[in-house]
Amino acid sequence: MNVVEVKTQNKDYKVYIDKSFNNIKNLIPDKKVSNIFIITDDNVEKLYLSELKNLLRNFKVFEYIVQNGEKSKSLDCIKNIYNFAINNNIDKSTLVVALGGGVVGDIAGFFSSTYYRGIKFIQIPTTLLSQVDSSVGGKTGIDCSGYKNVIGTIYQPEFVFINIKTLYTLEDREFSSGMSEVIKYGIGFDYNLFKYLEENSYDIKLKKESFLLHIIENSIKIKKDIVYEDELDLGIRMKLNLGHSFGHSIEKSSNFSYTHGEAIAIGSMMSLNLSIERELVNIDDLERIKSLYRKFDLPTQLKNISSEIIYMNMLKDKKNVGKKINICVIREIGSCVITNEFNKEEIILAIDSGIGEK
Amino acid sequence: MNVVEVKTQNKDYKVYIDKSFNNIKNLIPDKKVSNIFIITDDNVEKLYLSELKNLLRNFKVFEYIVQNGEKSKSLDCIKNIYNFAINNNIDKSTLVVALGGGVVGDIAGFFSSTYYRGIKFIQIPTTLLSQVDSSVGGKTGIDCSGYKNVIGTIYQPEFVFINIKTLYTLEDREFSSGMSEVIKYGIGFDYNLFKYLEENSYDIKLKKESFLLHIIENSIKIKKDIVYEDELDLGIRMKLNLGHSFGHSIEKSSNFSYTHGEAIAIGSMMSLNLSIERELVNIDDLERIKSLYRKFDLPTQLKNISSEIIYMNMLKDKKNVGKKINICVIREIGSCVITNEFNKEEIILAIDSGIGEK
Repeated sequence: MNVVEVKTQNKDYKVYIDKSFNNIKNLIPDKKVSNIFIITDDNVEKLYLSELKNLLRNFKVFEYIVQNGEKSKSLDCIKNIYNFAINNNIDKSTLVVALGGGVVGDIAGFFSSTYYRGIKFIQIPTTLLSQVDSSVGGKTGIDCSGYKNVIGTIYQPEFVFINIKTLYTLEDREFSSGMSEVIKYGIGFDYNLFKYLEENSYDIKLKKESFLLHIIENSIKIKKDIVYEDELDLGIRMKLNLGHSFGHSIEKSSNFSYTHGEAIAIGSMMSLNLSIERELVNIDDLERIKSLYRKFDLPTQLKNISSEIIYMNMLKDKKNVGKKINICVIREIGSCVITNEFNKEEIILAIDSGIGEK
Repeated sequence: MNVVEVKTQNKDYKVYIDKSFNNIKNLIPDKKVSNIFIITDDNVEKLYLSELKNLLRNFKVFEYIVQNGEKSKSLDCIKNIYNFAINNNIDKSTLVVALGGGVVGDIAGFFSSTYYRGIKFIQIPTTLLSQVDSSVGGKTGIDCSGYKNVIGTIYQPEFVFINIKTLYTLEDREFSSGMSEVIKYGIGFDYNLFKYLEENSYDIKLKKESFLLHIIENSIKIKKDIVYEDELDLGIRMKLNLGHSFGHSIEKSSNFSYTHGEAIAIGSMMSLNLSIERELVNIDDLERIKSLYRKFDLPTQLKNISSEIIYMNMLKDKKNVGKKINICVIREIGSCVITNEFNKEEIILAIDSGIGEK
């Protein structure tokens, strides 16, 4: 079992990276926890719920199953969970368990942060995307009026438990989506990780254990350092949104026909064009990055959406303050910077450069 | 202008106690705030909204008016506010202003803590209850399934601004309700305040400025010391709930026909019977406290509700952990302690003692 320690202003906690679920039961302090409330989705339920319940059989366990997919991140869904919790006397001695991908983590985290003004929860992320990104750092989110995560809190879990074996049941497209965030860490923060991904793409795609452990652990280490410096997302944590200013808008503008990772890959390529504009990177770097995305079956260009629509939806990004669009751009491979210095014309040009044939 | 400094783990801020609204405009940092979003209710709107908007005329001001009363503390109401905010491009550069009593503070605080994962807000409490209690300490709350504040967060304002003149437009029954919390501070925390209330009830009821300033400032000083020690409400902050374990249940069981302060007054008398049971206070103390409540037109006995119903609803209190009911009891006038040692029979007896003729 590998362990990464996360430090934040309010709470320090551990991320355990393991090859089975077995150790979970030893990590829950049974004197402080009187019962357990598992929130999961209908896909993950079939795969892992009974195994987890069996491991936690010494506790009284409640379960709530949401439909898989982004649509469950609604106020209506969260209202149903509040009602379920009230009716089943869930209280401050209950430990909430988020078992699933990013959607489940967002819902369960938001519920935990707002029920009884905050009850304890743990994350058991079962997708690569949630393992390397959303389960660490405490962001929770609910969508409203078609805008992602416009409602949310920052609320840290008691611990995060990753069983890499869950990646064996993940669809290829979802695995690629998670790899997009891993590549982001390489491009924006760690040249060694970038090279590792270039050199070991074959073994990573075969999901060999030691390679999965390496990329997950290193991704989390990058993320936790940034979260430590800026838990509340007021400054450098925006760097983690490399590719996301464009990417979130691509997701919304395409009515979520791209996965999160696909949209981020295309978004990163768009922001790379801004880096080239400022002569921060050269065309060779751009080709090298594009080639890495392709190795992991990620798109690098957008189809059938106008740049004007992408731009309009970018204006709604939570990261903006006033009318300026904040964008994280690559300074060189392994380093990035946040800026709001680009004007509308430059941004539209960057979007245009990312629209076309695949 | 009197100032009380509040310190918490996450944020330090000031409570300004003044005799008009005029100084507010000098307290808002206009470089950091691009626009203002006032949330108020239809009663307070008529009394103070235009005055406040005039003072803030250098900012672009949005306003959202909720219906007065507890019913607005619903998920449906908060959903409408989210939608209004999204449609009007409220973002992280917006300052939310809670203008009103406890209900408005709870709604606006919850909104601010969960919109864009937290935007800045200030409290301008206009009732005695919110001035001495709910506006300080960061608790926010939304009701669900008939249970008060079962949804909520702990989220501190940028500052609190109290204009004591707003108390001149407050209905007598609401003023008494606020006095119930002031009396609570006296009974549970500060014998000098208790004596001051006994000796100056006439001038306080006449709302003479220096007397209002004295009781508000001293109440807030007691509260902020406790919030400093236990912001997240995991231990001694429960002491502030003196009378509330019974009181919340009385509110719910009576379908909110008692004001919060009335229910707390009756609840404190019930918990005093537990203190007498344990020989912590004597009958003279009890009569003295009862007499003080009566001076401020507060009831000390309950009518037409069975003790069993009160007890059942007490079991749902957020403060409970597992099956035990946490109760704050008076040790002597000016001092209190939290305990869960009372069994069902003793609690029912205490409730019974508080039911009867007024």
